[in-house]
Order: sequence, then C-alpha cells, then structure tokens
Amino acid sequence: METHVVNLEAACAALSDLWSPRVVARVGDQYVKVARVQGELVWHAHEHEDELFLVLKGRLRIQLEDGEVSLGPGELFVVPAGVRHNPVAEEECWLALVEPVATRHTGDVVTERTRSIEEQLG
Amino acid sequence: METHVVNLEAACAALSDLWSPRVVARVGDQYVKVARVQGELVWHAHEHEDELFLVLKGRLRIQLEDGEVSLGPGELFVVPAGVRHNPVAEEECWLALVEPVATRHTGDVVTERTRSIEEQLG
Repeated sequence: METHVVNLEAACAALSDLWSPRVVARVGDQYVKVARVQGELVWHAHEHEDELFLVLKGRLRIQLEDGEVSLGPGELFVVPAGVRHNPVAEEECWLALVEPVATRHTGDVVTERTRSIEEQLG
Repeated sequence: METHVVNLEAACAALSDLWSPRVVARVGDQYVKVARVQGELVWHAHEHEDELFLVLKGRLRIQLEDGEVSLGPGELFVVPAGVRHNPVAEEECWLALVEPVATRHTGDVVTERTRSIEEQLG
C-alpha cells in the first residue's frame, strides 16, 4: 500500500461507514489511516501510543480531561500516550490519523465501535 | 510542541527559507515537519527510514530510479527505506513530512542544503 499516491479526500470518500478507520499508508512503525466520523467515539486512552489527528474536512473536537481542542481543515493535534480523550464531531468530519501499527482503535475500551486492525486494513 | 493545535499552512507560511524543514509535532518516534520547497533537493536515500510526503499547496514531483510520482494538495506518498529519490518542485510547494526522529534531512548525502535536527527544531 506504500508504493502509490494516496489522495486523502478520495480515500475518505470511499469509506462507507462512520468510525471505521482504513489504513492507507505505513511509514516506519506507524500507520496513516483515514476515517469519517460524526457524533462521538468513546472516552479512552492508549497507554503507550501517541495518536495524531489531522482534519481534512469539517471540524473535530477532541475532549480532554482538562479541556478540549477544536480542529478545522489542515489542523493537527497529537494526543500524548496515556491521555484520556474523546473525539466528537457535530457534523460529519473527515480526518487522517497517524498512530503505531500496534494501536487499538478505542485504546483501553472495547465498544461496538471498536474495529480490529484486520478490518482497518480492509 | 505536541500539546497545541498546529495549522499546517500557517506553519509553512512562517518559514522564511526554502528546503529548511521545521518540526511541528512528534508522534511516537516520528517527527511531523513542514517545509517550503522549490527547485530540486538532491538525489539521496535513507537507508533505514521510510519518509512520508504530504503536499499542502502546489505540486511536488518525487523522482525515483524507476520513474516518478507527482503529488498535488491532499496527496501523500511514502518513499520506502533505501529507495533513492529526489524531490522536485517547478513552482513553490508547501508540504508536510513524517519521518523518524533519527532521519537526516538529505539521507546519505550531505550538501549545502543539509539541515541538522537542531536547525529543524528551531
């Protein structure tokens, strides 16, 4: 998957489900994923992994225990390892993620929205 | 540098020099950098590190020994470790890079365009 050009918006447009990230590239031990989201995911943390969110379209709020950040197109934020967070989008939002190959989607929490890496690799 | 929102275009706009990447975030053992480029860098390879290019504005060609790819805004490409490549932009191009903390700017080649990581951390 790493030897061709990836158009991030087109990759998002090809996703049929919300909250189901799809791996589009790998750089070292990190996956680049795209996702379409709306509503809220779930409060969770990744004990050992940072997670980068880059908004492509729409707006994403990332609730944190001590506040929240709000990202528009072209804006990124890294949730440090161990920090509890909850992504929320009032309207549909398209985003790219960078996180380690080992990262579980919803971190330490398993919900009906949890997706296995096999599902994300499509 | 990881605890605030980064606007990638604004980070590029703040760069005064071409071909001088600036670190804007860290996710795990990878740095996210921004750069403004025009002209060509230099043929080089990173023996052990993949390098991700994401174009924000303009167009970037990445010459490879067996061809080349051309990236427009919102398009990314990963140059696998060990692959010789030469980034070329006819017009000014703004881009984001993801590469390991250990990566040297121009890989196995040192030129007047090589920037130390201290310079990139600004």
